[in-house]
Amino acid sequence: MRSIITLTSDFGLHDGYVAAMKGVILSINPEAVLIDICHTIEPQNIHQAAFILGTTARYFPSDTVHLIVVDPDVGTERPAIVVKAPFGYFVTPDNGSLSYVLQPYLVEPVFVNKPVPVSEGFKSDFALEVVKITSTKFWKTSVSSTFHGRDIFAPVAAALSMGERLENFGEWANTVEMLPLARPEKHSDGSLTGNIIHIDGFGNLITSISADEIRLSRKPPVIRVGGEVIKGISRTYADGSGLLAYTGSSGYLEIAVRGGSASSMLNARVGDRVELST
Amino acid sequence: MRSIITLTSDFGLHDGYVAAMKGVILSINPEAVLIDICHTIEPQNIHQAAFILGTTARYFPSDTVHLIVVDPDVGTERPAIVVKAPFGYFVTPDNGSLSYVLQPYLVEPVFVNKPVPVSEGFKSDFALEVVKITSTKFWKTSVSSTFHGRDIFAPVAAALSMGERLENFGEWANTVEMLPLARPEKHSDGSLTGNIIHIDGFGNLITSISADEIRLSRKPPVIRVGGEVIKGISRTYADGSGLLAYTGSSGYLEIAVRGGSASSMLNARVGDRVELST
Amino acid sequence: MRSIITLTSDFGLHDGYVAAMKGVILSINPEAVLIDICHTIEPQNIHQAAFILGTTARYFPSDTVHLIVVDPDVGTERPAIVVKAPFGYFVTPDNGSLSYVLQPYLVEPVFVNKPVPVSEGFKSDFALEVVKITSTKFWKTSVSSTFHGRDIFAPVAAALSMGERLENFGEWANTVEMLPLARPEKHSDGSLTGNIIHIDGFGNLITSISADEIRLSRKPPVIRVGGEVIKGISRTYADGSGLLAYTGSSGYLEIAVRGGSASSMLNARVGDRVELST
Repeated sequence: MRSIITLTSDFGLHDGYVAAMKGVILSINPEAVLIDICHTIEPQNIHQAAFILGTTARYFPSDTVHLIVVDPDVGTERPAIVVKAPFGYFVTPDNGSLSYVLQPYLVEPVFVNKPVPVSEGFKSDFALEVVKITSTKFWKTSVSSTFHGRDIFAPVAAALSMGERLENFGEWANTVEMLPLARPEKHSDGSLTGNIIHIDGFGNLITSISADEIRLSRKPPVIRVGGEVIKGISRTYADGSGLLAYTGSSGYLEIAVRGGSASSMLNARVGDRVELST
Repeated sequence: MRSIITLTSDFGLHDGYVAAMKGVILSINPEAVLIDICHTIEPQNIHQAAFILGTTARYFPSDTVHLIVVDPDVGTERPAIVVKAPFGYFVTPDNGSLSYVLQPYLVEPVFVNKPVPVSEGFKSDFALEVVKITSTKFWKTSVSSTFHGRDIFAPVAAALSMGERLENFGEWANTVEMLPLARPEKHSDGSLTGNIIHIDGFGNLITSISADEIRLSRKPPVIRVGGEVIKGISRTYADGSGLLAYTGSSGYLEIAVRGGSASSMLNARVGDRVELST
Repeated sequence: MRSIITLTSDFGLHDGYVAAMKGVILSINPEAVLIDICHTIEPQNIHQAAFILGTTARYFPSDTVHLIVVDPDVGTERPAIVVKAPFGYFVTPDNGSLSYVLQPYLVEPVFVNKPVPVSEGFKSDFALEVVKITSTKFWKTSVSSTFHGRDIFAPVAAALSMGERLENFGEWANTVEMLPLARPEKHSDGSLTGNIIHIDGFGNLITSISADEIRLSRKPPVIRVGGEVIKGISRTYADGSGLLAYTGSSGYLEIAVRGGSASSMLNARVGDRVELST
C-alpha cells in the first residue's frame, strides 16, 4: 500500500542500521515511500529529535507514519507507543520524542517532565489516540535487546502503513511522556527570559521565545544573548550585518550572523539564556 | 503524478529543513519520487552547487524537476526562476546555480558575472525557457522570510511535477544569471593556465581544463600544480604512483593520488592555478 | 518495473557521484525504488563495505538488487560480477565485497584471501550463480576509466531490476572473491581469541566472536579487550555501567559503554584482539 513513512534516529550515516530498518519495512510493505527526516541526532538526545520532528512532521500528509528511534533505554521496560494525531501517526519509544509535536495542543502550557493524560491533558477538539505496543504479533520473530528499531518499531510502522488498526498493536494507553520544555519567564517589567532550544547546521540559534511575543512588543525589542546586545528585529538575513535577530521559519525568535555562525561567534550552547526587553 | 524531483541545498544533514521541503512536495504530489543530489554544499557556496548540479543533472530523465536552494539572498528582491531546458526542469533562485548546466550551450564561451540573454545568449538549437516566479498562487499561504525552500521553491517544484505550465508561475524572463566561470588561459607557446574548480570527497582536484585540450595535445603533457610537476596523463588511478593526472569522469583534467588525497598532499584550494604544457 | 535497488559506496555525501548513478538507473528503470545503505564507507575499505552489507542485505526482499561500488582498482582488469543468491541480487566489483553476505554458506569456514569456487565452495543447498560482466550491451556508450559506478554498474543494476537474465551480462564465472575474514582462535583451555571487525557510529565494538560461542559457555565469560576486563554478559545497555559486553544485533559479541563510546575509551581499532575465557 502506497504510504509515506518518515524515519528519525540517532543511528548516524556510517552504518547499515537505518538501511536494515528500511529493508524490514519494505519486506512488509513493498510500496512504502521512505523519507529520512534526520539520522544524525546526537546519540540519545531525545530533545533534539523532538525539536526536529516538531518543526517537520506538520508538513507531511496527515496519513504519514513517523518512525522515531532515539532510544537510550532500549531493552528495558520503557514502553513503546503508536500514536494517532490529526496530522499523522507516530511510532516511538514513549520517552518525550513527541513533545514539540504535541506542545501546541496541551491544555496547560506547563512543561513538566512527566506523563500527560491523553484524555484530559490536551485540548478537547484535539483527537489523540495512544496505544502501548505490547502485542508481539507484528514484531520480528527474534527480537534483539539492542536494536528494537529493526525488530519492533520498523515492523510495527510497516504494519500501520498497511492499514492495521491501532488497537491491534497492544493496549490503549492513558498517558504520553513529555520532556520539560523550557518556557520563557515573564518579568514584571514586560521583559522575557528564554533559552536557546536548538542550534541548526548554519549555527543559527533557535530560542524558546515565540514569534507571538515579538509581535506583541510595541517598541523594537532588545535581545541579549551571550554577552551581546541586538537591537531590533530584522526581516531577513540580508537586513543586517553582524548579529541579527528575526522570526525564524519555525515560529521562534532566532539569532544569526549573515554568512557566518552565531553559534561559533557566541560560543553558544542549547540551554543558554536569551533575554528580550524593550 | 509519478515524477522525479531532485533536491540540492546547503541545508546539511543535521536538521529537518530538507525533510520539511519533502513533506511540502509530497503533500502536493504524493507520487513524487524524491532524489537527493547533495545537501552538504558549503553554506552559500553557489559555485559548488552549480558544479555538482552540472555534473549530475544530465544523467536524469529529461522530465525531471531539479530543485536547487542555495540562497544567500533569501528574503531580498533576488528573483526566483523556473527553467525548462531540453534535459530537465529547474527551480532555483536566479543566482548562477545553473552556470555549469547551461555552459555547454552558450553562444560565446565568455564567463561574465552577469545575466545572459535567454533569446540570444544560447545556441540557436537550444530551446531554453525561463519564467520569473512572481505568482503567489502555488506558494505556501504564509511565507517565511528565511525559508523560501519550504514556502516557495518546494511547492512550485511540486506543482511543476504535476504538469503545471511554466507561464503559470509568473512572467517570462529575458535573462538568466551566470557565475564568472574560470576559463583556461591559452598562451602563445600553446600552454594553458587553468584553475581548480572543485575538490571532491576523495580529495581529487577537478580543473577547468577540459578533456578536449588534452586530446589536442600531440606530446604527453606536463602538468604543474601546487609546486609539483606531473608528467603525462594516466588512464586510471592504478596507472601511477604518487600524484597523477587523468581525464576525469566529468570531462575535465583531474589530479589525484592513488589511495590518498591530492588535496591534502598539495594543500590545494578551489581557485588554485594549474598549468598544462608540453 | 517496480524493483528495489540498494546502493553502497565510498563516494561520500559531498559530491554528486551517488546522484549520477541514481539518474542513470532511473533513466533505464523509472520505477526503481532506490535505497541508500551507506555511502560513507572509508575510501577503498572493502572490508567495511562487506561488513555493513552483510548485516543489512538479509533484511530486504529477496528480489532486491544490491549495488556495491567500493572499487580501488577501477579501470584495471579486475572483474565485475552479477550474483544471484537466494536472498538477493548483487552487482559489484569482484573484490570481496560479498564476504560477509556469503560467509554463512561456505562449506569450509576457512577464510582465505582467494577466490572460492562457486560450484564446490558453498553448501549444496545454497544456489549461487555468478556472471562476469563482459558484455558491453548495457553499459553507457562512453565508459570513463574512473567512474564505473555510473557507466557500468548502475546501468547493469538497472537492467537487472528490469528482469534481464543473468547470462545476458557476460559469461558464467567459476569463482567469487573472498576477503580473509578473521576467525576466532580456539585454545586448549576453551578460551577464544578474536578481533574487532567493525566499530559502529556509537563507538560500539563488534567482534568476530559469534553469539553461539557465548551461548555455549557454561560459566559467565570474562572478556579482555584493550587492557580492560569485562565480567559477564549484559542483556541490554542499561544492565551495566562502564564497559559492558552483550550479544549484538548482528549476532556477534559486542562491547559498548552506556551513553559513551567504547572505541574512544579503549582507543580501539578494527583488528584489535579480544579474548573470551571463563
